[in-house]
Amino acid sequence: MRALDIISAKRDGGEHSASELEFMLTGYLDGQIPDYQMSAWLMAVYLRGMSDNETVALTRAMLATGEAMDLSGFTRPTVDKHSTGGVGDKISLVLGPALAAVGMVVGKLTGRGLGHTGGTIDKLESIPGFTTDLSRNQFDHLLRTVGMSLIGAGPGLAPADKRLYALRDVTATVGSIPLIASSIMCKKLAGGAEHIVLDVKTGRGAFLPDIEQSRELARLMIAIGKSFGRKVTAVLSSMDQPLGFAVGNSLEVKEAVAVLRGQGPADVRDLTVTLGAELVMLAGLADHHAAAVQLLNEVLDSGKAWSKFSEFVAGQGGDSNTVENLELLPEAQCKLSVEAHDSGYVHDIDALAVGHCAMLTGAGRERKEDNIDYAAGILLKCEHGTKVEKGQEIATLHGNDLGKLESLVPRLRAAITIESGIPAKKQLVIETIR
Amino acid sequence: MRALDIISAKRDGGEHSASELEFMLTGYLDGQIPDYQMSAWLMAVYLRGMSDNETVALTRAMLATGEAMDLSGFTRPTVDKHSTGGVGDKISLVLGPALAAVGMVVGKLTGRGLGHTGGTIDKLESIPGFTTDLSRNQFDHLLRTVGMSLIGAGPGLAPADKRLYALRDVTATVGSIPLIASSIMCKKLAGGAEHIVLDVKTGRGAFLPDIEQSRELARLMIAIGKSFGRKVTAVLSSMDQPLGFAVGNSLEVKEAVAVLRGQGPADVRDLTVTLGAELVMLAGLADHHAAAVQLLNEVLDSGKAWSKFSEFVAGQGGDSNTVENLELLPEAQCKLSVEAHDSGYVHDIDALAVGHCAMLTGAGRERKEDNIDYAAGILLKCEHGTKVEKGQEIATLHGNDLGKLESLVPRLRAAITIESGIPAKKQLVIETIR
Repeated sequence: MRALDIISAKRDGGEHSASELEFMLTGYLDGQIPDYQMSAWLMAVYLRGMSDNETVALTRAMLATGEAMDLSGFTRPTVDKHSTGGVGDKISLVLGPALAAVGMVVGKLTGRGLGHTGGTIDKLESIPGFTTDLSRNQFDHLLRTVGMSLIGAGPGLAPADKRLYALRDVTATVGSIPLIASSIMCKKLAGGAEHIVLDVKTGRGAFLPDIEQSRELARLMIAIGKSFGRKVTAVLSSMDQPLGFAVGNSLEVKEAVAVLRGQGPADVRDLTVTLGAELVMLAGLADHHAAAVQLLNEVLDSGKAWSKFSEFVAGQGGDSNTVENLELLPEAQCKLSVEAHDSGYVHDIDALAVGHCAMLTGAGRERKEDNIDYAAGILLKCEHGTKVEKGQEIATLHGNDLGKLESLVPRLRAAITIESGIPAKKQLVIETIR
Repeated sequence: MRALDIISAKRDGGEHSASELEFMLTGYLDGQIPDYQMSAWLMAVYLRGMSDNETVALTRAMLATGEAMDLSGFTRPTVDKHSTGGVGDKISLVLGPALAAVGMVVGKLTGRGLGHTGGTIDKLESIPGFTTDLSRNQFDHLLRTVGMSLIGAGPGLAPADKRLYALRDVTATVGSIPLIASSIMCKKLAGGAEHIVLDVKTGRGAFLPDIEQSRELARLMIAIGKSFGRKVTAVLSSMDQPLGFAVGNSLEVKEAVAVLRGQGPADVRDLTVTLGAELVMLAGLADHHAAAVQLLNEVLDSGKAWSKFSEFVAGQGGDSNTVENLELLPEAQCKLSVEAHDSGYVHDIDALAVGHCAMLTGAGRERKEDNIDYAAGILLKCEHGTKVEKGQEIATLHGNDLGKLESLVPRLRAAITIESGIPAKKQLVIETIR
């Protein structure tokens, strides 16, 4: 077997065998296949595509190069949720405790955010003391006692995916659906959960703005999961506008806690319940959808989900006082109002632009080595359809560098479109693919 | 400007500006752009193609990275011929002296052969003492006095092309028409001749077996040449069967000398005259095609071309006695007959298979570092349409390793198809593209 022949075959639109894909991956990790051959192959894959069989085989080969969690010892259903990444997406912070409260085991391997979307670990690390640097024993103990734990992905998790992703990033081959699907799914499968719900974002603020591409990604990830014997459902949700009002780490924790207390923005709660109900159904904890929804509403309204969150935070070394006294969370020194230039209705809040602004306040990383300002971010004071008067505050910039915040005011204002007339409602959950 | 954006643009089918192509090439030579980005771009070019404008700009950028000959000081027409490579292709050895005899200046920068097609330098180096390791002064002197000289391409000739070709070779991106065209033409343009004839081979033994691809390559190379103010014509010729009877270095020199003496195989003479007549026409040395053909026939029949060849060989340090006494050229110690298994007519001689056999006798290189056996090769004893009896000798293997030759007998026999019935004539010159 030669890398050159495998590259030629894909270049000409051929289908690889599982052993060819294994040869490419292991050869690449071993240093037998150089970067320049791998990148030519990646471009051929980008332009020629891969069949479902190839994508499954690639995922299997990537999974085989790394460590995988074994959660089969749990009698309660093991569940996991993945989001393809959105602006203001704090769903995991609400959904995890809610599922644990319902009686499921939520063990997540998780990574850090990059660019305009934040990572779950970054959000939680805004809680003083919180860490995902747990031993496998600590992780298992938390899953048994609390029903929820997050562990940071170590170098042993899907090392082939890490190397491939770094190469895709510099060779314009990130946006290939089969490569995205296998990259996400090899990590989800390594996480070990039996039931998986995928929140596939679509729209301007999403990784894949195009709905057809998002749909194809969802379909492909479900096919991969099923071929590994996992139960997988995907929900396509809109990322045209940010989720909730808060964008930024401690701001989002506060908003998540509000939802866990039965308050907070309706869209965050709705999407949490929608995704959770799918897992409840997959795990067979409810006979029908309405019952699944009711189970989740109950744990959110009763405070059970909230107290699970508190236990979870304490279990991971975090100061659980912060969960009751949100003012103990990092708070920005500078807050700058953005005011409406016109009266009218909010017709549009550009998620991508808001995400970029939030990153620039210090809430996110442009490059891997950047530090995060946990207090920084944006708090929206309006949502799609809100009636506003000229001069009314429509958003607040939070941060610790006033000059920087001032420079972002016009940019953030431009991200919020105000027009006369009431806009048509927008759909958050677009469809569920099972 | 960023390499990543340029790769993305080509990936999405965009057209590059000249400055983008220059940026890629100079960045690659400088080490600013790594191999893995260049190879992703090359694969995108392979699959998305390049416009004529892009190909011309790429050629210009490649030309700019290296040295170029200036032949503008000659009052006589400066001419060059390029063949895309064929089995038994000794045309340059005959055409060069014929053109010099007609009064043109034939200065060639030339490279070594690789794989199943031989290089002109290798053939000439089978003449004891012959060298292309000339100074620029010696080269100019020969062009002024003899009208013909060959100089080996040094490291200063199209260095970008050398680096790119090496990368294409290991990333399955060799067969891209725009990349082939710019690679050939940047070297031809650097050679400095005003009039260029391109012998574009098509068929099994050719680099591009498909006629449509050969036609496209010819069209594109002409477009490039014209955009640099050169006069270029292309002749599409068949490489289904070897040219002439001899394949191998000293064997081909002997056959070329026969043609220079007005003898030798008709196909070699016909193609020489066809290609030469195009240059005579381009240079305006004849009013019409028949006159151009007559000029060339005259120098071949009169011995003028032959004596030019003798002067040329002597000028390049070669022993010109060999040109009169061909038995002084390297002669193989072992000769092995290949006999027909059936009676009938020769319906086919597979050029690719014959080329591979000749390489394995020692006449060619599998890898750059291989040594050549100048005496080795194949002498065919039949051609398309020859009537043969069972047991008749149809080819002779020449070489210095009897075991190797014996192992090649069945392979060479299989390359020559004998069937009953007279086969239809095959066309050597398919079309001329001006």
